[in-house]
Amino acid sequence: MTTHYTAPLADIRFDLYDLLDVGKLFAKLPGCDGLTCETIDAVLEEAAKFSQQVLAPLNEVGDRQGCTFDKETGAVTTPEGFKHAYEQYIEGGWAGLTAPEAFGGQGLPETIGAPVKEMVDSANLAWGTYPLLSHGATEALRMHGADWQKEAFLKPIVSGEWTGTMCLTEAHCGSDLGLLKTRAEPNEDGSYAISGTKIFITAGEHDFTDNIVHLVLARLPDAPKGVKGISLFIVPKFHIGKDGKKGKRNAVRCGSIEHKMGLKGSATCVLNFDAAQGWLIGEPNKGLNAMFTMMNTARLAVGLQGLALSERAYQNALAYARERLQMRALSGAKFPDKPADPLIVHGDIRRMLLTQKALIEGGRALGLYAATLVDIQHRAKNPAEVKRADALVSFLTPIIKALLTENAVECTNLALQIYGGHGYIAEQGVEQYARDARITTIYEGTTGIQALDLLGRKIVQQRGEGLRLFLEDLGAFCAQHASDETLKEFIPKLSALAKEWTEVTQRLGMRAVSNPDEIGASAVDYLFYCGYIALADAWTRSVAAADASSQSDDFKQAKRMTARFYFDRILPRTRMHLAAMQAGPDSIFAMPDKLFG
Amino acid sequence: MTTHYTAPLADIRFDLYDLLDVGKLFAKLPGCDGLTCETIDAVLEEAAKFSQQVLAPLNEVGDRQGCTFDKETGAVTTPEGFKHAYEQYIEGGWAGLTAPEAFGGQGLPETIGAPVKEMVDSANLAWGTYPLLSHGATEALRMHGADWQKEAFLKPIVSGEWTGTMCLTEAHCGSDLGLLKTRAEPNEDGSYAISGTKIFITAGEHDFTDNIVHLVLARLPDAPKGVKGISLFIVPKFHIGKDGKKGKRNAVRCGSIEHKMGLKGSATCVLNFDAAQGWLIGEPNKGLNAMFTMMNTARLAVGLQGLALSERAYQNALAYARERLQMRALSGAKFPDKPADPLIVHGDIRRMLLTQKALIEGGRALGLYAATLVDIQHRAKNPAEVKRADALVSFLTPIIKALLTENAVECTNLALQIYGGHGYIAEQGVEQYARDARITTIYEGTTGIQALDLLGRKIVQQRGEGLRLFLEDLGAFCAQHASDETLKEFIPKLSALAKEWTEVTQRLGMRAVSNPDEIGASAVDYLFYCGYIALADAWTRSVAAADASSQSDDFKQAKRMTARFYFDRILPRTRMHLAAMQAGPDSIFAMPDKLFG
Repeated sequence: MTTHYTAPLADIRFDLYDLLDVGKLFAKLPGCDGLTCETIDAVLEEAAKFSQQVLAPLNEVGDRQGCTFDKETGAVTTPEGFKHAYEQYIEGGWAGLTAPEAFGGQGLPETIGAPVKEMVDSANLAWGTYPLLSHGATEALRMHGADWQKEAFLKPIVSGEWTGTMCLTEAHCGSDLGLLKTRAEPNEDGSYAISGTKIFITAGEHDFTDNIVHLVLARLPDAPKGVKGISLFIVPKFHIGKDGKKGKRNAVRCGSIEHKMGLKGSATCVLNFDAAQGWLIGEPNKGLNAMFTMMNTARLAVGLQGLALSERAYQNALAYARERLQMRALSGAKFPDKPADPLIVHGDIRRMLLTQKALIEGGRALGLYAATLVDIQHRAKNPAEVKRADALVSFLTPIIKALLTENAVECTNLALQIYGGHGYIAEQGVEQYARDARITTIYEGTTGIQALDLLGRKIVQQRGEGLRLFLEDLGAFCAQHASDETLKEFIPKLSALAKEWTEVTQRLGMRAVSNPDEIGASAVDYLFYCGYIALADAWTRSVAAADASSQSDDFKQAKRMTARFYFDRILPRTRMHLAAMQAGPDSIFAMPDKLFG
Repeated sequence: MTTHYTAPLADIRFDLYDLLDVGKLFAKLPGCDGLTCETIDAVLEEAAKFSQQVLAPLNEVGDRQGCTFDKETGAVTTPEGFKHAYEQYIEGGWAGLTAPEAFGGQGLPETIGAPVKEMVDSANLAWGTYPLLSHGATEALRMHGADWQKEAFLKPIVSGEWTGTMCLTEAHCGSDLGLLKTRAEPNEDGSYAISGTKIFITAGEHDFTDNIVHLVLARLPDAPKGVKGISLFIVPKFHIGKDGKKGKRNAVRCGSIEHKMGLKGSATCVLNFDAAQGWLIGEPNKGLNAMFTMMNTARLAVGLQGLALSERAYQNALAYARERLQMRALSGAKFPDKPADPLIVHGDIRRMLLTQKALIEGGRALGLYAATLVDIQHRAKNPAEVKRADALVSFLTPIIKALLTENAVECTNLALQIYGGHGYIAEQGVEQYARDARITTIYEGTTGIQALDLLGRKIVQQRGEGLRLFLEDLGAFCAQHASDETLKEFIPKLSALAKEWTEVTQRLGMRAVSNPDEIGASAVDYLFYCGYIALADAWTRSVAAADASSQSDDFKQAKRMTARFYFDRILPRTRMHLAAMQAGPDSIFAMPDKLFG
């Protein structure tokens, strides 16, 4: 028995064309202005095919086999079929889909890259982690690399000939990068000797490509302590000269791979740097800035991973709920000719299915909206527009990362629950999604770290500029539809929440000034409070966009009814988070540490 | 690296002596009246030692090795050390701890059996599943078995020489037992030939004991359709004559064992019955009644499994939060001499720890209270008292099963989250708890099934007698402490919730009369709404009991502060569940099935 996957092209197209009107958006963005719906559709359809036919069948193989590590050579062998799938990925031109054309990429907008990534990750999340960080490395090199570095490293990464990594974490520091110890000693030729051990390096070693380009955080000899003394280096697995020529093996070696709860097809590596040759990217001691470029890209990408797992789990749970016969509907048999009714007639099964559907489609709308902001940020000509998009995406990134990954834990577990005892059995395939999903709320910054980024940095330090702009757009949308009869079940509720959101934020912000513990105590509740209202906004816009579109009546009805479920059954979670925030930090901080147990 | 476990004896003793005053309770229960605190303490301490020293070290071994199945012989080999631990368990007299003295048991009350079970399951849940169902089989045989059956089967089960199973599920029926197909044809000697295939049989085959006693649901040839045509049979692995003599192998054989997400040390078996000899227990076609005896016992036991996993995960997360240094407290460095502060200074880490502590200690208080009710139900002389306890325990069973297991999923995942990336690594041991916990919300009736039992049966059909009694006690407690200054932060809130609870239940009950879909749509929200108020009751009583006790000031303070956290940060979940129930069933049932995706 294997789980299935069908790319949700109808919903993706709806989001792109009807909800976000990307035709209009792309028309005014340099480099996207020639992009037609036909081209976009063709890309999406090819991505769907590749995901469904090549990647999806390898998903369970990857979980079962995992990666293997050869202690003698330090080599990592990926699961059967993974390498071949990567060859097809390169041949199909997927590696450089959104990379700049100047470096051999196809220059497509992130708004198209995002749904392609969703499909890849739904099909096979573990496989998707190998090309994942090439994207971030491309960004970092493009924005902070010297010209020769771009020439030497960017092109092979963009073509997919090599892959990239992000080497941040060390055994004693994950969230707290200020503690990192990896050293960089200057060599005579302008390069640096990098020494130290990095852990949890996704795709740090594998058999897909001839070379791997590590982006490594390390300290220069005279570096200040803490995060202000961190520099970013590029350390290839095989030496690369300034002329781009590949040389011999660099002194970086995989020391072991981790045995994990899930995502077993993805190699999570310990990397030992033993005076490995590296090149400084950007300015000394400014490595964290450059790394943040990668990190924000990666955080949105991990949000999409959450969406992707939720989607696949939902599809399978739905199919199971339609097939599996068990008990009669409480209101009387719906299929009296069958020995029992299918699960889908039961209220609690429907609640679990609709929860998934509402979180998935709402999450997709929000995630793709963020992708349009990234495109504006990268391409718009008007600086005011860039600045606006920048503030919005910086506000939404922690929300999307945390919300869509926590949703993935919830949705994959609901799918498992719908399968009942069968869901706990490995061969059914659904428990793998729950295990795979579990890392997404942790890597690239835990939910708690995202929440501190949101409340501590984006709201308190940056005075809530992103939120202000988000609420401005929300207010304009509500005003525009104020007299719309078909939206009156949603708009007044959304408006009232927007008003409350402003007040809650102001109150929390003021309390945080006198007591910084307010931030630590309420950050996660605040993030979910924001996230659920953002999804309510996405759902209301989705209903409006569906109604105004040429979609079928069934499609419009499904959007409206799912939105109604969202408002009825999920949005009330804001009441719980609000009450928790209002309680303040006392009951969290008053208890002496020794009394915890 | 291995996780540790220290039995929470202080909290267990507090619940028994201070909160539940078991001395007073036992004094009036036949068979318990001679039980002293010294005896109880000795039992608890021995159980703690056995759990910590014998079972806990085998927990990770069990997960890593799992069980192995021999296709040739149908034999199951349990993980290294499991069988030897069982021998020690038998030698220690643990098997018959709460079984009747008439059959060789020690006749201890369930109120003592429950914390012993908690410790065993914390130490090694997979191992704990082997003796688990012997307890249910004992109950079923004791209450429904013929005299010769008790003689022949009960004694060796009570002594632990044999173990028991519950064989309900078939491939096409789990929640819906009415669909089951296993047949029972009468033999000439008064026995029956049982034929069919049962799946998901916990401890259905193993190497612990010479014989295994299966309690099997099957249909007689002339049986009515559905649940009214199910009879219960006893089918031993080796034939047992009416004289108790063991004969040759019976025609029941393990066909395979499942590969599961977790609980890998527990053998989950497919059992093939091929005209196996079985004996009817109780009356024909009344098998479900007898099985419910086992099921209610097993449901409370699974609730305790949830508690047990939460406790062990919490202990390890707490230790990690105290050791792991990462970032500074937002209010300034707490340990300026260290390179960073320990995790426990951070607001969100404290929120996650306190959530676990509050759910665990509240859950333990509630679970042990239910155990006292079971003892009253089984032993009290006054029929009115028995009836009252019966109604209360029947009301609380689905709540405890669902709440404590969903809490286990939450608590083990919070523990994993506190470990960050390290939590996802198998060697750390904490991810095992999250995987092990995941089955507890499914087996012995999913959360959805518990919720239907609560709202559909215990509230609507039985007119809420159990709830009425629970609220009567709650009201009396509140009245008694109405003028208690030290409880005024809790009592008024609890009283208000009790009032609301009554109203919510009445409204829901009335709506359910005209529309049965109200039950399916709101059952799970109703169950959690009830559960969180029941925990608020347990927490308020715990604070009162601690204050009135001779416990240390630290202990009293910890109880009060955790209660405060519970009221501030967890109890608001009732607002979310209330709003969801108030929304009614429309948004769950209106959407046509075809529009789900």
